[in-house]
Amino acid sequence: MNFYSKITLVGAGPGDTDLISLKGLKALATADVVLYDALVNEGLLEYAPKEALRVLVGKRANRHTYSQQEINELMVAHARSNGHVVRLKGGDPFVFGRGGEELEYAAEHGIPTTVVPGISSAIALAGLQGIPLTHRGVSESFWVITGATTAGIISKDIYAAAKTDATVVVLMGLNKLAEIVQIYQQEGRGDLPTAVIQNGSLPNEKIALGTVDTIVASVREQHISAPAVIVLGEVVAKHEHFSSRQHKAIAV
Amino acid sequence: MNFYSKITLVGAGPGDTDLISLKGLKALATADVVLYDALVNEGLLEYAPKEALRVLVGKRANRHTYSQQEINELMVAHARSNGHVVRLKGGDPFVFGRGGEELEYAAEHGIPTTVVPGISSAIALAGLQGIPLTHRGVSESFWVITGATTAGIISKDIYAAAKTDATVVVLMGLNKLAEIVQIYQQEGRGDLPTAVIQNGSLPNEKIALGTVDTIVASVREQHISAPAVIVLGEVVAKHEHFSSRQHKAIAV
Repeated sequence: MNFYSKITLVGAGPGDTDLISLKGLKALATADVVLYDALVNEGLLEYAPKEALRVLVGKRANRHTYSQQEINELMVAHARSNGHVVRLKGGDPFVFGRGGEELEYAAEHGIPTTVVPGISSAIALAGLQGIPLTHRGVSESFWVITGATTAGIISKDIYAAAKTDATVVVLMGLNKLAEIVQIYQQEGRGDLPTAVIQNGSLPNEKIALGTVDTIVASVREQHISAPAVIVLGEVVAKHEHFSSRQHKAIAV
Repeated sequence: MNFYSKITLVGAGPGDTDLISLKGLKALATADVVLYDALVNEGLLEYAPKEALRVLVGKRANRHTYSQQEINELMVAHARSNGHVVRLKGGDPFVFGRGGEELEYAAEHGIPTTVVPGISSAIALAGLQGIPLTHRGVSESFWVITGATTAGIISKDIYAAAKTDATVVVLMGLNKLAEIVQIYQQEGRGDLPTAVIQNGSLPNEKIALGTVDTIVASVREQHISAPAVIVLGEVVAKHEHFSSRQHKAIAV
């Protein structure tokens, strides 16, 4: 082998190919192999050299699904046999992206790693809709929680979050929306402004606006499906189409 | 006026000029005026046209400091008289960046706005150090809190956060570190792994590692000063130089 084996974990951003960082593009331009997730915009693959190998390792219909262990092994095997592996991940590598496990596996196998952070959908998608996660006098913090825990049950952190004034962002939680609504209602927060965003940053972006009490109906009317981001907090009322009197679903 | 007045809020990322998005670069390339904050890397100004006006509106020694109201007015005045204003902000525009206020002011004055999200130091700086904010079996969420509230006192959200398993990230909180430590100690969490990162993503990056009980000493030994990011959570132990037996400050 006369090349240098290395792995670069690159955050691809929330969807729009222009939301990758310049550093991410530079990493792609020197890739020998790109291992990319299902949520990554395939338009980004054009930035890799023509001769680079491109491998989809995420879950998509009618394709082989790789386990995390298989991805780890593939990553190290390709670094050893091909050189520079770019592990291209949706959003940021460490926001529920299992980037930490990939770094650990690479380190155990003696392959040097570099990290290129990405724009996380947890932050960006609300902002693109004009919903500021923090706002003076309204919210001093935001709390990002996974809707899909290892155990498959709802995270206990959502119970804790519903008791606080933090803006709460739930990723991968659309199929738990009714449960999340119930947790907030039990805290007497049915009036809390709530948004659900699908395909954020892409041309087919959709948003459902409402309150905790109305968001399930709003999501249904907007035909919103997973993956989607849920935002709960007073800051959602900053959206230009939010109205406190109109809690029904609206088209945006 | 034969031009189109508009304002683009652009997140510049955490420091490294290569961590701006491609979309942010494209906005800069068509700027007539760039209004930039003190924390923005001035290297990014090279991406604006030569003839574009560049105005530092952030706080720096020996310079006029603009109030948020003055920044809002300047932004709208320049959009009216010059055309495309790029409002270049450190990190992401909506993570304690007062981007929401700027959007509101522009809307009140009839100037159209676009948002380009940025890589937030809240997420990226831990990741660049190999600290994953979330990790299966360790952390199902992260909570980002400002250390500098409007009232100047510590955010009540930090008291709530200290009672949870969330990874906690505090921005602009270094001068409140001793107080934060005390809050965690009162919850019996003196052993919680803690990191403080200064100048993250830049060549002069520094980190202090320790626990809640030792982090103040560690920060002092590393000569870390503001602005810095504080990370509290079991995930900090994933840092390659963290050792549970060695709670003293270490050079990295």
